[in-house]
Amino acid sequence: MNHNLTWHNMDITKSLREEQMGQKACTIWMSGLSGAGKSTIANALEKRLYAMGKKTILLDGDNVRMGLNSNLGFSDKDRIENIRRIAEVAKLMNDAGLIVITAFISPYRQDRRNAKRIIGEDFREVYVSTSIEECERRDVKGLYKAAREGKIDSFTGISSPYEIPENPDVIIDTEKMGVEECVDQILIQLHPIFEKSE
Amino acid sequence: MNHNLTWHNMDITKSLREEQMGQKACTIWMSGLSGAGKSTIANALEKRLYAMGKKTILLDGDNVRMGLNSNLGFSDKDRIENIRRIAEVAKLMNDAGLIVITAFISPYRQDRRNAKRIIGEDFREVYVSTSIEECERRDVKGLYKAAREGKIDSFTGISSPYEIPENPDVIIDTEKMGVEECVDQILIQLHPIFEKSE
Repeated sequence: MNHNLTWHNMDITKSLREEQMGQKACTIWMSGLSGAGKSTIANALEKRLYAMGKKTILLDGDNVRMGLNSNLGFSDKDRIENIRRIAEVAKLMNDAGLIVITAFISPYRQDRRNAKRIIGEDFREVYVSTSIEECERRDVKGLYKAAREGKIDSFTGISSPYEIPENPDVIIDTEKMGVEECVDQILIQLHPIFEKSE
Repeated sequence: MNHNLTWHNMDITKSLREEQMGQKACTIWMSGLSGAGKSTIANALEKRLYAMGKKTILLDGDNVRMGLNSNLGFSDKDRIENIRRIAEVAKLMNDAGLIVITAFISPYRQDRRNAKRIIGEDFREVYVSTSIEECERRDVKGLYKAAREGKIDSFTGISSPYEIPENPDVIIDTEKMGVEECVDQILIQLHPIFEKSE
């Protein structure tokens, strides 16, 4: 460590943490329809980053909706607050030096813009562009069927809009590529972040 | 890395992250009156842990009240929600493998009990026991004077209770020890956590 002369006179900053972890912090914000493959790709991406020695955390419905955002519903107001809290947590985790991967539908441009504003320069948007037809064909959780039958209100892509990202950093087409190829694409296109010397 | 045979078939778990970071995750929850020295000790503790190669994050009023909890006031309901969100974020950060230090007055046993319930076995309570007389004498921010003059409602220790931790893991007396001694005490008394082999 080469901080002996200075570290004890200052707070531990984000850049000190990044240096210690040998990486550049960032938030990889994955957006796309239900069933598009966000969680699958996010998981595979995290495994790959782990194997590269990177320190990561994955925020998704499993660990956020059950905990931090368990007191939020699906009203417009709660939907906005849901994304805001996720972005604020991602920012804190970036400050801790971590690479954060988020996997939420996040269908509205305004909400994603707000997330970008909160997270700042560490924000990277990945659009998982799987078409509604393909998502509905897969329908892993049976949600599209239920939405078509009117059993789910405001279901993104059916009865509620999905606003396509206007200028994402990466577009991933799961209809043309396998999971590992999708991960390759993300790593290649965001590579200046991951190449930070250790 | 000795996970080559298994890691690609499983998600990246908390224990894998801890192993990668060479540490045991935990949340060091510091409680005490305004001016007790929580933030000063938390900062010094974080610097010491950094020098030991540990990966940490400090949650305090500066980075939480301005961001994640910026939409909360000081009503009973908001106070409970404030501590709940901090605990949920600490838990997520523990899942990421980090050592989390929190520095909030957190005056109510019920709230701290709730934090412990959320965070689980990683929770460690540190009571910064500086007396009200000493905090008021120091009055670094002039808040006690303002509270005595009735300019601040529900000020902990003056017009609102501070419920002393019943069974904290560490008690720190800043009236008898300097900052570095306080840090020594925390490191010694929580040492099984920090000794985890790298």
